[in-house]
Amino acid sequence: MRVIVDAYGGDNAPEAVLQGCRMAADRWKCEIILTGDGEKLREKAAELGISLEGMRIAEAPDVIPMDAEPTAIMKQYKDCSMARGLQMLADGEGEAFVSAGSTGALVVGGTLIVKRIKGVKRPAIGTVVPCRNGCFMLLDSGANHDCRPEMLRQFGLMGSVYMKRILGVPSPRVGLVNIGAEETKGTELQVEAYGLMKEASYNFIGNVEAREVPLGGCDVAVCDGFTGNIILKVTEGLAKLFMSEIKAIFMKSLPNKLAAAVVKKDLGAFKKKFDSAEYGGALLLGTKKPVIKAHGSSDAKAFYNAIRQAISCCENNIIGEMESQLAAETAEKE
Amino acid sequence: MRVIVDAYGGDNAPEAVLQGCRMAADRWKCEIILTGDGEKLREKAAELGISLEGMRIAEAPDVIPMDAEPTAIMKQYKDCSMARGLQMLADGEGEAFVSAGSTGALVVGGTLIVKRIKGVKRPAIGTVVPCRNGCFMLLDSGANHDCRPEMLRQFGLMGSVYMKRILGVPSPRVGLVNIGAEETKGTELQVEAYGLMKEASYNFIGNVEAREVPLGGCDVAVCDGFTGNIILKVTEGLAKLFMSEIKAIFMKSLPNKLAAAVVKKDLGAFKKKFDSAEYGGALLLGTKKPVIKAHGSSDAKAFYNAIRQAISCCENNIIGEMESQLAAETAEKE
Repeated sequence: MRVIVDAYGGDNAPEAVLQGCRMAADRWKCEIILTGDGEKLREKAAELGISLEGMRIAEAPDVIPMDAEPTAIMKQYKDCSMARGLQMLADGEGEAFVSAGSTGALVVGGTLIVKRIKGVKRPAIGTVVPCRNGCFMLLDSGANHDCRPEMLRQFGLMGSVYMKRILGVPSPRVGLVNIGAEETKGTELQVEAYGLMKEASYNFIGNVEAREVPLGGCDVAVCDGFTGNIILKVTEGLAKLFMSEIKAIFMKSLPNKLAAAVVKKDLGAFKKKFDSAEYGGALLLGTKKPVIKAHGSSDAKAFYNAIRQAISCCENNIIGEMESQLAAETAEKE
Repeated sequence: MRVIVDAYGGDNAPEAVLQGCRMAADRWKCEIILTGDGEKLREKAAELGISLEGMRIAEAPDVIPMDAEPTAIMKQYKDCSMARGLQMLADGEGEAFVSAGSTGALVVGGTLIVKRIKGVKRPAIGTVVPCRNGCFMLLDSGANHDCRPEMLRQFGLMGSVYMKRILGVPSPRVGLVNIGAEETKGTELQVEAYGLMKEASYNFIGNVEAREVPLGGCDVAVCDGFTGNIILKVTEGLAKLFMSEIKAIFMKSLPNKLAAAVVKKDLGAFKKKFDSAEYGGALLLGTKKPVIKAHGSSDAKAFYNAIRQAISCCENNIIGEMESQLAAETAEKE
């Protein structure tokens, strides 16, 4: 197994990338291929005392900035560490790719360099989000702001395969995120998508109101990328707000501080559950090979988890499963 | 001051309505006009031992169900308690109207019976939502799923007037809810609305990412009604999830239970802050007279707060202020 990792993606690159890759290479039998400026990477590894055993470096002189136009990955930044990694993946020089760089550039590069699975209209970003009693996959969580109903139908299929193959949910409940339970609710997009999804081969459970999503109302929450990004970001903001409010309560007085000491361990576990670094990266679903999108603020542990996710996608052949299910749906319609 | 209240709106009607109105009538010098079936209301009041002093009943034989088509308020339910209340408001038989009934019916009825302020494209539901260091107004939070850019511009104006006049924010920061800070982010709707809003007379601070909304990133969060409903409902679901997780931690063991006893008062205050019953109802903004939308699950305290909000809207002349600001903006454009 060879996992290609963008050494210069994310706020904490390349330090956190090197540390996370070291942890992953020690833990699993996998070869890590780092894309980036070799001289600088070797220097940084030496400085941090990180051995590069089991890893190799593929030269990429450039880095695409987070605020660059996504399409720039195909033009002025075509030699960046992300583009190099995607090209190696497309060329069969590795089985999966991990990057914490610009989401937009990864979507464009993944779509145009790695290319789509046959029949896929548009790849989507799928994010695994914690909820009551487990987690769910939210997709699209940001790749496509404007979606057509057929795209939402496919997102349901791709999310369903992931939840079943990777997270072991027997028959994932696929819900359409909407503002009401009835089939007629929402905008034209939701109404038409509902009609298509109820004919799909996966376990479509109908509309899921946004209130039910964090409460475990479905295993796959399907929506357009604008709505998905809003849900993800509101969740992040509220988690931050609640944690800071709880912390303020526990720091308020000496008795409160003593009470905090008692529940510290349990609160820590709770915080860990809602910590994005714990459940690893998101995925670009719909490309011919697995492309993992680690959070921009990923630390070493998050990179380690993203690599674990990449390996799991390969071992469980989620791409092959998506291909055959898409082919079956297409054959059925013809 | 005469406040008209729909006695048969909401899950806890008419009991909670009667109790909330009693509290309000005792507290403020206002006359309460209850719309609904008089005989049943008097019976229920007697049964609960609630005096109807300072209140009077306006007969309305019918009730519009929560799941009725919103437009049904103009046809088969034109004699319902909500329609009667809106008609009385339009006819000048009261200064404001409060209902916890169907949001959709209230939007249709408010728009067609009470009618819009001159120049208003579409009324919006504005909801006051708690956040770090206070609260913000989210609008549209559900009246219009599909919006045009000009509507979003007006929502900013209406929300700004509310936050200034009612909540005393000197120069409310109006933000456009979006998936990134740059002017070019989002769908066509956001890009075009941004262009209009930056020319507006209020304090437009640009795009606000959804993550910043609960963290107090703006005083008025402007979006289409689909997005607003999603934000509101995800917030509700997450608040419920976090509270139940905290509760589970505190019930886990005897030491944890003892720790809980120490911080109980502070946690209660925290919970109260995020309790929708505490900050009262939402508003239909853009109608010629104040229409208050209480939460469907409103209890007596929530009705009391909604009536307080209705009185405050009248005393602070928010309709007059919106009228003059809209007129000024229109004059400027001509």
